[in-house]
Amino acid sequence: MNFTHETLPQRVVFASGQAFTRLPEEVARFGERPLVISTRADGVLPGAAYFREVAMHVPVEVANRAREAAEKHDVLVSVGGGSTTGLAKAVALTTGLPIVAVPTTFAGSEATNVWGLTENGRKTTGSDDRVLPRTVLYDAALTLPLPDDMAVASGLNALAHCVDSMWAPRADPINQTLALEGIRALRAGLPRHDLEGREQTLYGAHLAAVAFASAGSGLHHKICHVLGGMFNLPHAQTHAVVLPHVTALNISGVPPHIADVLIGLRGLREEVGAPRALRDFGFRDIDIPAAVDAILPVVPAGNPVPVTAGTLTALLHHAWAGEEPT
Amino acid sequence: MNFTHETLPQRVVFASGQAFTRLPEEVARFGERPLVISTRADGVLPGAAYFREVAMHVPVEVANRAREAAEKHDVLVSVGGGSTTGLAKAVALTTGLPIVAVPTTFAGSEATNVWGLTENGRKTTGSDDRVLPRTVLYDAALTLPLPDDMAVASGLNALAHCVDSMWAPRADPINQTLALEGIRALRAGLPRHDLEGREQTLYGAHLAAVAFASAGSGLHHKICHVLGGMFNLPHAQTHAVVLPHVTALNISGVPPHIADVLIGLRGLREEVGAPRALRDFGFRDIDIPAAVDAILPVVPAGNPVPVTAGTLTALLHHAWAGEEPT
Repeated sequence: MNFTHETLPQRVVFASGQAFTRLPEEVARFGERPLVISTRADGVLPGAAYFREVAMHVPVEVANRAREAAEKHDVLVSVGGGSTTGLAKAVALTTGLPIVAVPTTFAGSEATNVWGLTENGRKTTGSDDRVLPRTVLYDAALTLPLPDDMAVASGLNALAHCVDSMWAPRADPINQTLALEGIRALRAGLPRHDLEGREQTLYGAHLAAVAFASAGSGLHHKICHVLGGMFNLPHAQTHAVVLPHVTALNISGVPPHIADVLIGLRGLREEVGAPRALRDFGFRDIDIPAAVDAILPVVPAGNPVPVTAGTLTALLHHAWAGEEPT
Repeated sequence: MNFTHETLPQRVVFASGQAFTRLPEEVARFGERPLVISTRADGVLPGAAYFREVAMHVPVEVANRAREAAEKHDVLVSVGGGSTTGLAKAVALTTGLPIVAVPTTFAGSEATNVWGLTENGRKTTGSDDRVLPRTVLYDAALTLPLPDDMAVASGLNALAHCVDSMWAPRADPINQTLALEGIRALRAGLPRHDLEGREQTLYGAHLAAVAFASAGSGLHHKICHVLGGMFNLPHAQTHAVVLPHVTALNISGVPPHIADVLIGLRGLREEVGAPRALRDFGFRDIDIPAAVDAILPVVPAGNPVPVTAGTLTALLHHAWAGEEPT
């Protein structure tokens, strides 16, 4: 038993259907002059100022305008998906203002200290404890407007974070425990789209973010990163297709209590109607050798089973064709 | 799903056999003028100053002398059991100095923000985030000198923290998840006294402290507190005897995934040679009605099964006689 685990401080409130009744008291813990960052048309916090310009990948120009708008405010409130949370983090990065985050998707950014900014089409990311929201207010009712297919895509992304945490470079018994609980919650929540299902998915997405930020990127994310970068494959679909194959590959190398939970994922992709084949998204079988060459050097050293050109070729071929994972 | 969970920040290093080789780098993260609080005769940190007067329950006079000794130091290093960690916390409470804790027992104090001080025979306790050690360096080899019976008593105390977290007033899915993992580790570690067993017990004791500090005191601790206070029963033995009976009482009211783990505890007390009967420690059957009267008003409202005078009488009678839990 040899590991280093850093637990980050955060207050997490789960309160279905109560986000906006609970928000004033949660904000008042940190300040009296809140700036709400949100594209929502309704006033979510009585008497607050609003910054409504949110864009994907946090363009630095938008971040600069938000930073100006935040002057004379003492607490940031983000209400929205990953881009909204990301913008609040960009403001916190330079101002040190505390964030109260109210997520409306399963992106998970609200539970990490990772920030990102895009300038001239290039994204810079980093981690800084100042950007970690002090409080997260989770209300599953806010995710009900998400269309089912987007909820599944976002939830499967969270599932990939949990699964890949099992064999990531900084995997340890503590982040594995949180990730296993996340898998159980996502397994239960993802096939359902009622409030209870969304509650489980939201809870699982929180644990996924905590575990993944702690454990780092494992084999699955390395593969998907190469496929996305080299062949411009769509992010969510690539993750959904590849995950069962990486799971099947690594399952023989993990301890029984982890294998048991991973076995429980069988059948999930049918239940949620997840995509099955990379060929449906522009990946070609003649691309496989180049992908294998690019993936091999970035395979994490601690992967539970050896990964060779042969293993990777077979894995990508199965994923390309939409075959059952073996 | 309706709960509020506060995660406290801490860096946790598990490094068996390496405490004193790893200690300098961990201390250097916080300061350059460490004060080591420890009764150990060997120098654990080259060039450091030492404060060697440690007493049970942290007498305020000792705390005041330690606070004086800490002037001109910028980081505290505690190496020892609960009393040593507690003394470092008393110093941190007034000075704000960061603590690097190296525990040598399974007391768990190093993973909580709870402090205690004794003045004129009265103990005052409180919680303050300033006393939470910033880093804990866990080295199971340091627990090997603990005699087996003391290790078992200390480990069963940690187990009681985990089990009682299941139905404590602030129990939530996150602290339950950590406590369940703690139970698994303690179940595996407690019957063994080799390095691997002590590693599991130490890891379980860490999770027990994190979970219990988050969840609060449940039925088991309320019962033991009354028995200890009214009848002066010994702390460790009372916990060891009572725990299986409270577990058996509450198990029918908990979800299956918790019940499964609790069922796994059957047989543990025989395996570790835990005490079985309160009659062996001065408790008399004629004391039972008074104990029941004192316990009933402090039964936590959220206990998973109803607790009546009849249930408590039966439970205490079984525990008094050393019968099997029912």
